[in-house]
Amino acid sequence: MTENYRFASFTTFAGVEDLPLDKVADERPDVVIIGAPIDWGATYRGGARFGPKAIREADYLGADGERPHLPTGIDPLSELRVVDVGDIAVPPGYLEDALGTLADAIERIAAAGAVPIVLGGDHSVTFGNGTGLARVHGDGSFGIVHFDAHADTGETNVGALHGHGTPMRRLIESGAVPGHRFVQIGLRGYWPDPPTVAWMKDQAMRTFLMSEIVERGLRPVVADAVAAASEGDTRGIFISVDVDVVDPGMAPGTGTPEPGGITSRELLDTVRRLARELPVVGADIVEVSPPYDGPGQVTAFLANRVVLEILNGMAERKVGA
Amino acid sequence: MTENYRFASFTTFAGVEDLPLDKVADERPDVVIIGAPIDWGATYRGGARFGPKAIREADYLGADGERPHLPTGIDPLSELRVVDVGDIAVPPGYLEDALGTLADAIERIAAAGAVPIVLGGDHSVTFGNGTGLARVHGDGSFGIVHFDAHADTGETNVGALHGHGTPMRRLIESGAVPGHRFVQIGLRGYWPDPPTVAWMKDQAMRTFLMSEIVERGLRPVVADAVAAASEGDTRGIFISVDVDVVDPGMAPGTGTPEPGGITSRELLDTVRRLARELPVVGADIVEVSPPYDGPGQVTAFLANRVVLEILNGMAERKVGA
Amino acid sequence: MTENYRFASFTTFAGVEDLPLDKVADERPDVVIIGAPIDWGATYRGGARFGPKAIREADYLGADGERPHLPTGIDPLSELRVVDVGDIAVPPGYLEDALGTLADAIERIAAAGAVPIVLGGDHSVTFGNGTGLARVHGDGSFGIVHFDAHADTGETNVGALHGHGTPMRRLIESGAVPGHRFVQIGLRGYWPDPPTVAWMKDQAMRTFLMSEIVERGLRPVVADAVAAASEGDTRGIFISVDVDVVDPGMAPGTGTPEPGGITSRELLDTVRRLARELPVVGADIVEVSPPYDGPGQVTAFLANRVVLEILNGMAERKVGA
Amino acid sequence: MTENYRFASFTTFAGVEDLPLDKVADERPDVVIIGAPIDWGATYRGGARFGPKAIREADYLGADGERPHLPTGIDPLSELRVVDVGDIAVPPGYLEDALGTLADAIERIAAAGAVPIVLGGDHSVTFGNGTGLARVHGDGSFGIVHFDAHADTGETNVGALHGHGTPMRRLIESGAVPGHRFVQIGLRGYWPDPPTVAWMKDQAMRTFLMSEIVERGLRPVVADAVAAASEGDTRGIFISVDVDVVDPGMAPGTGTPEPGGITSRELLDTVRRLARELPVVGADIVEVSPPYDGPGQVTAFLANRVVLEILNGMAERKVGA
Amino acid sequence: MTENYRFASFTTFAGVEDLPLDKVADERPDVVIIGAPIDWGATYRGGARFGPKAIREADYLGADGERPHLPTGIDPLSELRVVDVGDIAVPPGYLEDALGTLADAIERIAAAGAVPIVLGGDHSVTFGNGTGLARVHGDGSFGIVHFDAHADTGETNVGALHGHGTPMRRLIESGAVPGHRFVQIGLRGYWPDPPTVAWMKDQAMRTFLMSEIVERGLRPVVADAVAAASEGDTRGIFISVDVDVVDPGMAPGTGTPEPGGITSRELLDTVRRLARELPVVGADIVEVSPPYDGPGQVTAFLANRVVLEILNGMAERKVGA
Amino acid sequence: MTENYRFASFTTFAGVEDLPLDKVADERPDVVIIGAPIDWGATYRGGARFGPKAIREADYLGADGERPHLPTGIDPLSELRVVDVGDIAVPPGYLEDALGTLADAIERIAAAGAVPIVLGGDHSVTFGNGTGLARVHGDGSFGIVHFDAHADTGETNVGALHGHGTPMRRLIESGAVPGHRFVQIGLRGYWPDPPTVAWMKDQAMRTFLMSEIVERGLRPVVADAVAAASEGDTRGIFISVDVDVVDPGMAPGTGTPEPGGITSRELLDTVRRLARELPVVGADIVEVSPPYDGPGQVTAFLANRVVLEILNGMAERKVGA
Repeated sequence: MTENYRFASFTTFAGVEDLPLDKVADERPDVVIIGAPIDWGATYRGGARFGPKAIREADYLGADGERPHLPTGIDPLSELRVVDVGDIAVPPGYLEDALGTLADAIERIAAAGAVPIVLGGDHSVTFGNGTGLARVHGDGSFGIVHFDAHADTGETNVGALHGHGTPMRRLIESGAVPGHRFVQIGLRGYWPDPPTVAWMKDQAMRTFLMSEIVERGLRPVVADAVAAASEGDTRGIFISVDVDVVDPGMAPGTGTPEPGGITSRELLDTVRRLARELPVVGADIVEVSPPYDGPGQVTAFLANRVVLEILNGMAERKVGA
Repeated sequence: MTENYRFASFTTFAGVEDLPLDKVADERPDVVIIGAPIDWGATYRGGARFGPKAIREADYLGADGERPHLPTGIDPLSELRVVDVGDIAVPPGYLEDALGTLADAIERIAAAGAVPIVLGGDHSVTFGNGTGLARVHGDGSFGIVHFDAHADTGETNVGALHGHGTPMRRLIESGAVPGHRFVQIGLRGYWPDPPTVAWMKDQAMRTFLMSEIVERGLRPVVADAVAAASEGDTRGIFISVDVDVVDPGMAPGTGTPEPGGITSRELLDTVRRLARELPVVGADIVEVSPPYDGPGQVTAFLANRVVLEILNGMAERKVGA
Repeated sequence: MTENYRFASFTTFAGVEDLPLDKVADERPDVVIIGAPIDWGATYRGGARFGPKAIREADYLGADGERPHLPTGIDPLSELRVVDVGDIAVPPGYLEDALGTLADAIERIAAAGAVPIVLGGDHSVTFGNGTGLARVHGDGSFGIVHFDAHADTGETNVGALHGHGTPMRRLIESGAVPGHRFVQIGLRGYWPDPPTVAWMKDQAMRTFLMSEIVERGLRPVVADAVAAASEGDTRGIFISVDVDVVDPGMAPGTGTPEPGGITSRELLDTVRRLARELPVVGADIVEVSPPYDGPGQVTAFLANRVVLEILNGMAERKVGA
Repeated sequence: MTENYRFASFTTFAGVEDLPLDKVADERPDVVIIGAPIDWGATYRGGARFGPKAIREADYLGADGERPHLPTGIDPLSELRVVDVGDIAVPPGYLEDALGTLADAIERIAAAGAVPIVLGGDHSVTFGNGTGLARVHGDGSFGIVHFDAHADTGETNVGALHGHGTPMRRLIESGAVPGHRFVQIGLRGYWPDPPTVAWMKDQAMRTFLMSEIVERGLRPVVADAVAAASEGDTRGIFISVDVDVVDPGMAPGTGTPEPGGITSRELLDTVRRLARELPVVGADIVEVSPPYDGPGQVTAFLANRVVLEILNGMAERKVGA
Repeated sequence: MTENYRFASFTTFAGVEDLPLDKVADERPDVVIIGAPIDWGATYRGGARFGPKAIREADYLGADGERPHLPTGIDPLSELRVVDVGDIAVPPGYLEDALGTLADAIERIAAAGAVPIVLGGDHSVTFGNGTGLARVHGDGSFGIVHFDAHADTGETNVGALHGHGTPMRRLIESGAVPGHRFVQIGLRGYWPDPPTVAWMKDQAMRTFLMSEIVERGLRPVVADAVAAASEGDTRGIFISVDVDVVDPGMAPGTGTPEPGGITSRELLDTVRRLARELPVVGADIVEVSPPYDGPGQVTAFLANRVVLEILNGMAERKVGA
Repeated sequence: MTENYRFASFTTFAGVEDLPLDKVADERPDVVIIGAPIDWGATYRGGARFGPKAIREADYLGADGERPHLPTGIDPLSELRVVDVGDIAVPPGYLEDALGTLADAIERIAAAGAVPIVLGGDHSVTFGNGTGLARVHGDGSFGIVHFDAHADTGETNVGALHGHGTPMRRLIESGAVPGHRFVQIGLRGYWPDPPTVAWMKDQAMRTFLMSEIVERGLRPVVADAVAAASEGDTRGIFISVDVDVVDPGMAPGTGTPEPGGITSRELLDTVRRLARELPVVGADIVEVSPPYDGPGQVTAFLANRVVLEILNGMAERKVGA
């Protein structure tokens, strides 16, 4: 699908099989990695267009399609058939077109029975991801567990409909993911404004602020999040990880850093737990911005492991570990 | 309390007067500095959205509105009334809207009898600049002297109409600036393809490749460029400086670096000469990308001086120096 | 035209009102932000002269003077009238003169009934801050809660009276802030030497080493600090935050990094608590050194939020939250 | 003339006495610092050849041979005679020769009754260190407490015997340090593969994964590690610290970053505890890679303090603190 | 050939066909790109192991196997069949083994009638390249035009036979390339010592120092170099480009920077001229060290264009341009 | 054990003899290297306090006190006895004291018959250097050939007497170096203001602007400079090299970058020529700021070679080359 696109990396995640998007329907893999090299939805620092490339390449292990997980002894790439379809091809500066292209790709993946894991890109991509999934699974059928420093429920993005500050609101408005299906973890700082917070409450969104996490500890909060995400007739969850949920002191390579977040370790453990305890219908890891990551590129390494931990949780669930 | 102190932020270029755009019509300054913080037209590395900020701040001199030019003894900020209207407000990811907003702003500036100098932004902004100017001065009335490693005459920008690879073609197609009014200096490398080169020739664009500059020397080439730009009934020139015309070894902070360009010194001397020898109706300096510029930010410093040298050439012309 | 757009320069902290220092007496704001761009008191790495600029600009939110605090729902910039007077103007290399200029400015602010929050600069500025405040509030009338990896109680600074290693000693010697009014949090490492430690004890300074914080936990230590700072007839506290109290792994942009500190989150929570529980007469945030902060500038972002959390704590106290 | 001035180069660690290696036998110091500037055993990013230089220089204190420890009041450089013999001289690209040279140097140091502390270098150097020590103390006579994200027990290093992925296996195979003498702390991620894990178990190596540390807390795990390292007739421990045991978010300057590690503070406290509670026969601190450390060089600063904390623990043990 | 090797990039140069090395004999392409990710021959800064990856990726154009050359209108990738076999697989730290592996690969390429272009790696790789070629073309049958700041004719490399300071001497000693077949361009600085210079003279090596280039101009010097390289019964030339021949001010990403070199433009023009005027039997571009190149990675971009200019010169020669 | 190994720290320039300043009078070396780690005279970016360290360490050659010059075959460290006395010890923030300390040190060196070469530091140090030399050689007895983008003749430095903008004026005013003894090369940009330029003319200072260098070529300008510097009864010249005379595109690591300068090569050739053609009484190389130099540290490498080229010119003069 990449078609020589300029931001693209030229490998696959962890060296898994390279499969063109149009073969997914026939091959029916368990999981499909796909890149969404879009950063023109970001209101401040860009750079996330190089996120998919950086996340794939932030890996000192062999490109051999094997990742045996040390604590569990499970190799998620062996338990699950994971393929990588490359990045969607999108012209810069036409955000709505790009999100449409993304939604179509996600729809095709989900329609093939596979779980898409999207490498962003800024957070505007979650609108495309949620939209595409809802077309297959049905509006309101799944929840989103959303890790972030920011609620991403803005009424507009600097005056525009789409952008990295509005995807959750747009998904609620479109009906793809109703407000009560949202569980947000890690919010903090000085945004959004009270009317938006009130609107979120009206939508019955569940939010766990960092202040609550500090007060109660992360584990009980995640237990509550799991309970909330399991309510009712949900068919599964979409895990949306904005890497800025982690403290920027540990994950500097991101566009809108908000100090005071969780640790890298906490994020890794939590996404694995979620994927083990709940049925995952999709995931994205967004807002990794390589030009702001420094020579060590530690944020990209973290994002790479977020994907692996989600996969491992899914594999543990599958094998009943 | 700051009193132009050197460590402080610069809000206006060189500390010139801060004037709201809607006052320009009344105040009728000679020159208006305006920022176009757009980088979602770039096909490879972004970052130029921070160009306007970086160019204004890459300045160790006081924010005092004084810049006496050592070689000529002229202070262009004294000879010309220069104001800064800040940056246009644009939502990321909606390129055509942003270019429309820019064109409107440029039109207002030109309509007030002022010369706009635009701090980019990626090169897509030149479409907005040329369009706005043509609305006031008339289609075909002015030429563009275009410094660049790339022709920017692509048929599409990764499939889209607008972007940093197509502005010159779009201006020719719209009639704002016909092909024979273009003089391009510094082109090199492996782009565009022969059909595009043929199209450029058909449009009667004049191009001076780096290979010709190396062969003949820059001065005679610029003399030819001046002659070409002066042909016929032209009312003036727009100087469009893509900072990547300079060798990336000397100007690393740019999005699509093409080795083998001119030196910083050559660029500075040439833009001043053009502004002294030809009537300038506008200018832009684009593709300065701070996140790729390194800690010294030398490319932003260069761009700051490009603006000053243009202003000084204009001042020299005015005082008959 | 800029309208608080996010890529633009910030001239005032968070876009609050820009007020000249000589208007402060008339306007009588609640809080005055002031920059002290001094780094010639640093014995190792400099760069903190750009601290005020970096702290103001490390902000992806609008320059709109609004900062609604997500956990409390309070907007401190609405509850308190906060202005920014810019930076003091000081010639580099004349430290004592600069500290004198700073002390005069702080005195004027305090005399107007306002709380100064000083953006450093290296830690030598705290001598100026404490001196200026004591002129208004009276010697010995307030305490200093001092977050730092270092005690800053050196007998000399590489042989000189003033510098970033001596401000606390100088304040004690001058009588402005007696030793028993000091509460120090986060000290660690291999400095100062035992005679200095003995002197500190003789002065009745209270110090909470990192080793004690690790042993007992930060919250009980802060409770003790609050109690200590409230003793006797104190009229309030000055919060002095050396950003190197945070582990350099999370806050690399500082001059004298000492591994093993608290987390960013802990610092933010603690300064807010202090400002909520105790009357604040002033504050400074110092030793942010942008050239050592890497492309993400995460230390500057942290410092920006330290200021906001102090303001929020003050606002909570005011509204009785 | 320099007189330990802070901006100057450091030639010896903390300014301790510079002693040629061939004088060690006569002088019989307590501790010998030695650099092993080898990075051609690293399979991914290099740069650790500059580790010894960076670790010595990451120090804002005087080069005066004094380091009074704030929490204990002990100056380890006063309690122990510590000297620095500089770096071994090794031709790049001949790894086995270099390890041989290193083993010889370590043997000489240990034979003189001194404890070597080796500044790496990549982790391949631990084979040289363990080999040299075993020649003096006897095969199987001491244990290794090994902090690392990785087990370093690969069968080969990209097909070769030696490299940074195999030193522990080579030491077990040679008999220098039997498997049951190994205690590994902090392992995580997706390496090595199950056969290697099985081999490690067969060798009776003790491993404490990060997942166990998260579950139980670090202190009880270290207590178990101390117990394990004290078993039987061990004559002492070698502490091998791969700086990547710390989360790369806090210690980015390393070659094979694996997110999810311990904090800097935890590492510092733990090595001091070990050195206080157990007899140390040697130590190394490896995998510090300055070109990936960013402008703040915080990983090198951390490594410098790791050495000091080990020294302090040894001094505490000596004085019975 | 790459076999999941860790330094490898996962694309091909300019998107040309990916061909396994063992297919080269059958397919008989004109040119074979091959990476030699070796930096353990460097005596100072490493990092060149990532040179092949960086050179392939330093390219904003499409991975489409098309590179139409603007000045000549020739697309070298169309005139010549160019393939990329990836990187050789080599264990770090075993330099002689790696050079042997490289020589074997080069031999296979040359035996298939193809011209190898090697992406280094440090300059030690030229020994492998020259050795492999001589096995096919015959000892003494071709010359080397060597661009470099350094003569690379050391007697030893820090005491060892091989390394980046000795390849030219080893090739002369082995007889593969006799001294009179060497033409060196751009030497400068303070190395090697007079006995080595005398030895070079004894071998009849031709050297053009930078001082001569400054005095006479580069063009006449290159004319002399062409004449020298054409002498006698030579069957062709190998072009060995150490990127440090360019001034480090323009090409900072290299291991042993020696100020005072040629410009990027001069290098590009000269290698194209050589490839047009002389029959090329092979080439290498070495000593590109990405970790020292800064965020713009301009040295890698330059090296990418060096390869393309060589290819274009070869294509011009082929089509008789 | 280090034996001048290349990764090691350099304590003396090029590994020359380390001699305490108080032994200089007895030992009477030809040249004394001395560091002046002062950057609190800089009005914009600091960092030059680490200039002496960076200049000594920017050297991939052995610390062996040998530097055979390739073009001439002369080893200046063999022809001249060069020693390094380290850095002066100065408290930060007390500029006048520091300049006094420096002047005293320079006086002692000159009184011993040696030529001081000072590694700065910002340009304020030249006042100390000139003052110290004049005490020995006599006021007005020597000239200064001053390479710089800036005239450094400000009336004040942000209101203070001393700083990096005023040293030349202060030397003229004190009588140490009268105006007609100054030859300035490379000035450009927008500073100083016309009154200062007029004052410079009144003092009979000779200035060669960059614009003149571009117009006439550097060689004839230097010939004029040599003639000017040789006029009358001068006893010799002091060469003061502000590294910002070089274009910041090639030398980014400096505090006040002014685009449009000479090349690195031109600077190296010119200082050698001056030292060969004129009697040198001293030299300094200033304004090298490592934190702004990027990972390649190319500006420090350039400065290292400036020192060597001056030494080589002096050696050539001595041996009559």
